[in-house]
Amino acid sequence: MKNILIGQSGGPTSVINASLVGVISESKKHNEIDKIYGMINGIEGFLKDKFIDLTSISDKELELLKTTPAAYLGSCRFKLPKEFEDEIYKNLFEKFNKLNIGYVLYNGGNDSMDTVDKLSKYAKTINSDIKFVGIPKTIDNDLMGTDHTPGFGSAAKFVANIVKDITLDAEVYDKQSVTIIEIMGRNAGWLTAASVVARANKIDNPVLIYLPESIFSVDKFFTDLKLALEKRKNIVVCVSEGIKDKDGKLICEYNSEAGVDIFGHKNLAGCGKYLENQVREKLGVKVRSVELNVVQRCDSSLISKTDLEEAFSVGSEAVKSALNGETAKMICMIRESDYKIQYKPTDVSEISNKEKTFPKEWIINDNDIADNFLGYILPLISGEVSLTYENGMIKYLIRS
Amino acid sequence: MKNILIGQSGGPTSVINASLVGVISESKKHNEIDKIYGMINGIEGFLKDKFIDLTSISDKELELLKTTPAAYLGSCRFKLPKEFEDEIYKNLFEKFNKLNIGYVLYNGGNDSMDTVDKLSKYAKTINSDIKFVGIPKTIDNDLMGTDHTPGFGSAAKFVANIVKDITLDAEVYDKQSVTIIEIMGRNAGWLTAASVVARANKIDNPVLIYLPESIFSVDKFFTDLKLALEKRKNIVVCVSEGIKDKDGKLICEYNSEAGVDIFGHKNLAGCGKYLENQVREKLGVKVRSVELNVVQRCDSSLISKTDLEEAFSVGSEAVKSALNGETAKMICMIRESDYKIQYKPTDVSEISNKEKTFPKEWIINDNDIADNFLGYILPLISGEVSLTYENGMIKYLIRS
Repeated sequence: MKNILIGQSGGPTSVINASLVGVISESKKHNEIDKIYGMINGIEGFLKDKFIDLTSISDKELELLKTTPAAYLGSCRFKLPKEFEDEIYKNLFEKFNKLNIGYVLYNGGNDSMDTVDKLSKYAKTINSDIKFVGIPKTIDNDLMGTDHTPGFGSAAKFVANIVKDITLDAEVYDKQSVTIIEIMGRNAGWLTAASVVARANKIDNPVLIYLPESIFSVDKFFTDLKLALEKRKNIVVCVSEGIKDKDGKLICEYNSEAGVDIFGHKNLAGCGKYLENQVREKLGVKVRSVELNVVQRCDSSLISKTDLEEAFSVGSEAVKSALNGETAKMICMIRESDYKIQYKPTDVSEISNKEKTFPKEWIINDNDIADNFLGYILPLISGEVSLTYENGMIKYLIRS
Repeated sequence: MKNILIGQSGGPTSVINASLVGVISESKKHNEIDKIYGMINGIEGFLKDKFIDLTSISDKELELLKTTPAAYLGSCRFKLPKEFEDEIYKNLFEKFNKLNIGYVLYNGGNDSMDTVDKLSKYAKTINSDIKFVGIPKTIDNDLMGTDHTPGFGSAAKFVANIVKDITLDAEVYDKQSVTIIEIMGRNAGWLTAASVVARANKIDNPVLIYLPESIFSVDKFFTDLKLALEKRKNIVVCVSEGIKDKDGKLICEYNSEAGVDIFGHKNLAGCGKYLENQVREKLGVKVRSVELNVVQRCDSSLISKTDLEEAFSVGSEAVKSALNGETAKMICMIRESDYKIQYKPTDVSEISNKEKTFPKEWIINDNDIADNFLGYILPLISGEVSLTYENGMIKYLIRS
């Protein structure tokens, strides 16, 4: 009998803990697995001997944990060194062996898959039979090999619904206005593209949507915006935080230049704030910017049921896969024609350190999203989850 | 038989339309009322003959409308002139009479109550028997004479829950960090104070809470913050957008000075962003600011059931009150010991243009909120509302 070890890594999502629950629930079913350990603060914390025993967590606690946002075990941003000669590897495997670990599961994005890749490769060099399996997670939806990633559906559902709410709010006055909504995504525009779902049922906003996959030109933005204002009183614009100009310079970096104060101090702010100030100055129209910020990745009131169930499944599938003797894999989701998901372990080396960006063929005129995208995204945001409340507050499971 | 006219005014809330539904539903019950008209964009739109007939709106539509955020009829920010000689009054009453209006209800905050006050006073001077009744509404909770205002409970529930979510998100890394959350409230700190509700069940954040009712000193803020960082790794700070220094200058105005670029252009941003940049520069610690922005007043996924029901009731009570012959009143909510609400028409002249700020005795050390406040706020955020979804999107009633 061996023990299993699970770690969470990278930016949190609303459903990352559902994957943890999937791992725990599946592990409990198998006699080959004795104890279930959780790294505290990922591999970085584990190196400092920070871990907990999750074996006796109750079903009631697991139920609450499933919809608790942010990483229950704590997270890290930590990259293992390239050189296997580094002491860190020897160190880690000693710790694994001391705890009688047979299976290491790691839940995260492409950086975390690099950890899975390196650990499994190192294991080979020392003939260790510990199995390493990656569990996908990221609101950015930028992992290769998988149709989509757990965490994206809920963040996308939040974005689509909140953009719709903000649109209604922006339209209450009989006065011309521009509202700029900044959405997460440094290199991949998937989440910003999700704002297009707001545009239905008598609402034709957001009118303009800019992704980091297209070159952003402030001049073209003003041309687009003026044209839009000729046709419509209230314009909602959605922009990815990572929009860049033709030289690859981030638009948000324009801020720190514009905003250097008399002492030369930089004023850091997002691209939405920069564009807001530009619109106010150049067009004199009423303008507001809204940065959705971390709320889009930690709100639990708009979790997608599909996303929650899939997050659970990638966790349980990772356990099955490791027990089947697979290693150096990540659990990918393959979409079948009627939106059934096949879970398929895929070589992690094909996934780590790569980014799946938004398809160019779904971008129109560098400022809009094609309708084809709706067929892709609607299943991912579908279904609602009932939460437990106490005194008006959503109940979560918090680690002591 | 007379007709009734209802208008919405000022900033929207998540439940302002529930008051409209209360008005419509109650009006339909009374034979004394024939048609139900809605001003489009409040009194300002009505002056341009913009209104719609709501009499035949279906029950199914009303059910959707109840949880649709933002003002269904559109809103305005419009102040009637002081001088009753102004043509505008004659004009308005001609329009009222032409439409055979017997009752005018106006839903808004203290500026909107000024409209109710002036119209009822003018009516007296011309012996008009049209009744004018105000319906309270504001997320700021700053109306006099009423225990609280419809719209506040839902915004407060959103703030408390989202601050808790952001706190969990802020604590995932094993690294010192400061998170500053900027919450709406220019002169009244009620909504920012609601963030204290997040602090329960193993969560001791937000550690610091600053309201506009206290003088804000950047020096004291740094003293408070350094002390907090000695005791705890991750600090969440909640600030009202309207915090001011001892000279009454808004902290957010510090930005436009700091941020004047080489051309002298102002860089407008909130106080949260200003403090974020200050913390980064002076303490070198990881820091992020989150401005909850309009999302806190238009999110419908965290509507408080209590708030929704009360918003409906103030609407229906306003109709009853007008039919009873009352005029120049606003419907106030009086709290009884076991949290039963009495609806009481109160002279609007005692309410208009005044602000009820957060009680000084509930502010501790100018950076914290007393526990007594919990007894006040918990009933207001209690209860959940089930929404109708379609394709993952909350269904709303949108005006054509």
